[in-house]
Amino acid sequence: MPKEDSTRSWEDLGPAAGNGLFDRRAFFKGGAALASAMTGYTLGATARAQALLDDPWSAVPGTPTGPYESPSRFETAAVRTMTNPNGEPRAQQSRTPHHLLDGTFTPNGLHFVISRSGPPDIDPDQHRLVIHGLVRQPLVFTLDSLMRYPTVSRMAFVECGGNSAPLWSPEPIDATAQALHGLASSAEYSGVMLSTLLEETGIDPSATWLIAEGSDSLALHRSVPLSKALDDAMIALYQNGERLMPGNGYPMRLLLPGWEGNMNVKWLRRIELVDQPAMSIYEARTYAPILPGGKAYQFYFLQEVKSFITRPSPGLGMRGPGFYEVSGVAYSANGRISKVMVSADGGQSWAQAALQEPVLPKAFTRFRAPWRWDGGPAVLQSRAWDEAGNVQPTRAEIVAVRGEASRVPSVNGFPSQHYNGPTSWGVDSDGEVRHVYA
Amino acid sequence: MPKEDSTRSWEDLGPAAGNGLFDRRAFFKGGAALASAMTGYTLGATARAQALLDDPWSAVPGTPTGPYESPSRFETAAVRTMTNPNGEPRAQQSRTPHHLLDGTFTPNGLHFVISRSGPPDIDPDQHRLVIHGLVRQPLVFTLDSLMRYPTVSRMAFVECGGNSAPLWSPEPIDATAQALHGLASSAEYSGVMLSTLLEETGIDPSATWLIAEGSDSLALHRSVPLSKALDDAMIALYQNGERLMPGNGYPMRLLLPGWEGNMNVKWLRRIELVDQPAMSIYEARTYAPILPGGKAYQFYFLQEVKSFITRPSPGLGMRGPGFYEVSGVAYSANGRISKVMVSADGGQSWAQAALQEPVLPKAFTRFRAPWRWDGGPAVLQSRAWDEAGNVQPTRAEIVAVRGEASRVPSVNGFPSQHYNGPTSWGVDSDGEVRHVYA
Repeated sequence: MPKEDSTRSWEDLGPAAGNGLFDRRAFFKGGAALASAMTGYTLGATARAQALLDDPWSAVPGTPTGPYESPSRFETAAVRTMTNPNGEPRAQQSRTPHHLLDGTFTPNGLHFVISRSGPPDIDPDQHRLVIHGLVRQPLVFTLDSLMRYPTVSRMAFVECGGNSAPLWSPEPIDATAQALHGLASSAEYSGVMLSTLLEETGIDPSATWLIAEGSDSLALHRSVPLSKALDDAMIALYQNGERLMPGNGYPMRLLLPGWEGNMNVKWLRRIELVDQPAMSIYEARTYAPILPGGKAYQFYFLQEVKSFITRPSPGLGMRGPGFYEVSGVAYSANGRISKVMVSADGGQSWAQAALQEPVLPKAFTRFRAPWRWDGGPAVLQSRAWDEAGNVQPTRAEIVAVRGEASRVPSVNGFPSQHYNGPTSWGVDSDGEVRHVYA
Repeated sequence: MPKEDSTRSWEDLGPAAGNGLFDRRAFFKGGAALASAMTGYTLGATARAQALLDDPWSAVPGTPTGPYESPSRFETAAVRTMTNPNGEPRAQQSRTPHHLLDGTFTPNGLHFVISRSGPPDIDPDQHRLVIHGLVRQPLVFTLDSLMRYPTVSRMAFVECGGNSAPLWSPEPIDATAQALHGLASSAEYSGVMLSTLLEETGIDPSATWLIAEGSDSLALHRSVPLSKALDDAMIALYQNGERLMPGNGYPMRLLLPGWEGNMNVKWLRRIELVDQPAMSIYEARTYAPILPGGKAYQFYFLQEVKSFITRPSPGLGMRGPGFYEVSGVAYSANGRISKVMVSADGGQSWAQAALQEPVLPKAFTRFRAPWRWDGGPAVLQSRAWDEAGNVQPTRAEIVAVRGEASRVPSVNGFPSQHYNGPTSWGVDSDGEVRHVYA
């Protein structure tokens, strides 16, 4: 990579791509280069008095926050959407409000959750994890006994195979980043490597798969190749520093970094080593995407390289021309994000975005690009590459292989899962942002 | 650093220090080396049936978690302690339960909070940040206008200057890691660099300090050298991905990575550039530690290199001899942690702990060391080094300079703040863990 030239200003760099996008190197110029952004207000006497003296909350003592703190009462919008708020006997999907977040991971209160029959109310002292089947010595683990083993921590994204499914629709969908992409989140998990426990039980040479089973009322189970179990699978006990949230598998879940969300079995109670997959409904039907010719994928483990812009995005109106930061998240099951390019003209030209360090494998990477909006129509897009050399396909490319929603109906109205093409946000001259195809 | 030898087993390495402590390299041996840990239970027919069939929570559908998720109802212990739960007109200190957490940062619900007059109930749309004084052009910023600037994310610990003050006591204190060290936490912050905003306002050449003021009812304010403001100070808007918590400064706080917690002014409403410090009560009195000779520190900005063991620790009883992981956190205002050594014999001998990657500057670093407890008395200690070459002093060394509580009374009963010596946990043959001096 060429050494950054610290003597040029942002303006000197010139736009790197059409419609006002600047190169990530503009960030290295520091604030001086941004002087023309000037989005503060010049201080007048009235404003100053207002700012310093008139705030009603400064006139009275505040109220201490509780033993476990919750967001401000003004943050009513920063919540998960609920598809089944009354807990009827069907799935619940709770989506992360990406457009209202920043940083490199998802806080626990807002991590996405899909539960097929509701999170079980597990007493951690009574819960057991059984490892059996093609092992030398079957074992039962309590939470206390798991805590005796060496632990590790890592960031990892989890994404539902059905995330972004609305983008299979032939027409753009008027919805937010939360509605379109809210079934992906990223968090730090701490726990015991599954390989450590399998060394304890021993592995019969005939074992090639394992079946992981949850203790929810439908005993959701998925088959996992043994190679993944011995690679980076974790029995996760902590999420972002505290015990797992109930919706995310309390007191323990299987974490398979980068693999289809449904396989990361929550409320984990049983791992059976076997010599063939179980072909449970979630692998034989729900997550076996049907292709236009009528064939279907048998297993689709990886959540492949993907990115989307979270700001600007629908619901976040823009207030006049000038400087904006284009910000979003990128991630890949195949390791670290190596590059994100951003376009403001619907993919005709591209500028390289800055990646927030540290860039970690199989975790959200925050990208940012400086943009001078001229107040005219624009179409924002992002495209990500991973260190294994994969790149997000264009929407035309992925639709050519998988089909669109109108052509091949399926269980959830969309023909396929695992959409990892780009997302386009159209900006109109009023500053409204909408989902478009470009 | 020597290349790890992957052919030797954990046992082959032999204990690296007295009383059963192994070197961090034992972790690289994988699970086989830990076979003798064997803390699972051998599976019997009865246990198996119990584990798979008798769980009452598996018999009924669960209840969906809400729009903003909270911990399990069984996690009643994982809460902050409250010194002023009814919000009387005095300070509230809420301490982080380190002994019940894992990973590399603190979740928002459990981040420590000190509020001197209660968190104000701020309407973010009405809140203003004023930057004025020795500037070229004073400016007022709304939250919306701040969101127009380039943002960054970083992990940072915040620690109260008075954290760990009980360790100035001449006698050990029978208390948990939460009670002793709970006024330090670490989180990811996202926001705008203060230097970016100061480029907008311009800086008068005569400016050498700034005064940062909160909008709490006592308008808490602290003086900050301009050099820190231009180095890595941030106007933090997000904490662990979501908006700041009310107790931590919603909607914006000054973040001074590594510097005394009280200086990281919360509910920030005003920054005035000046040519001398304000000498507010918190810098002239509360956080001006008095020395045995009667002199006092004038300013004590840095939270120096420090570490403590979170597991095992008081309140977490040990259940019989065998393998345990010794785990804790280390941090330094001077950059990255470079090394943590752990002792099981009260400091007579030491083994090097493993550091969880990525190791980030001015943020918590999780360390872990394998330990075989023989069931006899032991004294656990940790000692950290930072990349600037600093090391935690022994307790005797720091007490020799600063004095002990009984000798020099002060406003809060302890003579000093900024204790960064070691913490010793005594383990007795029943597996009880208590604070001791060693």
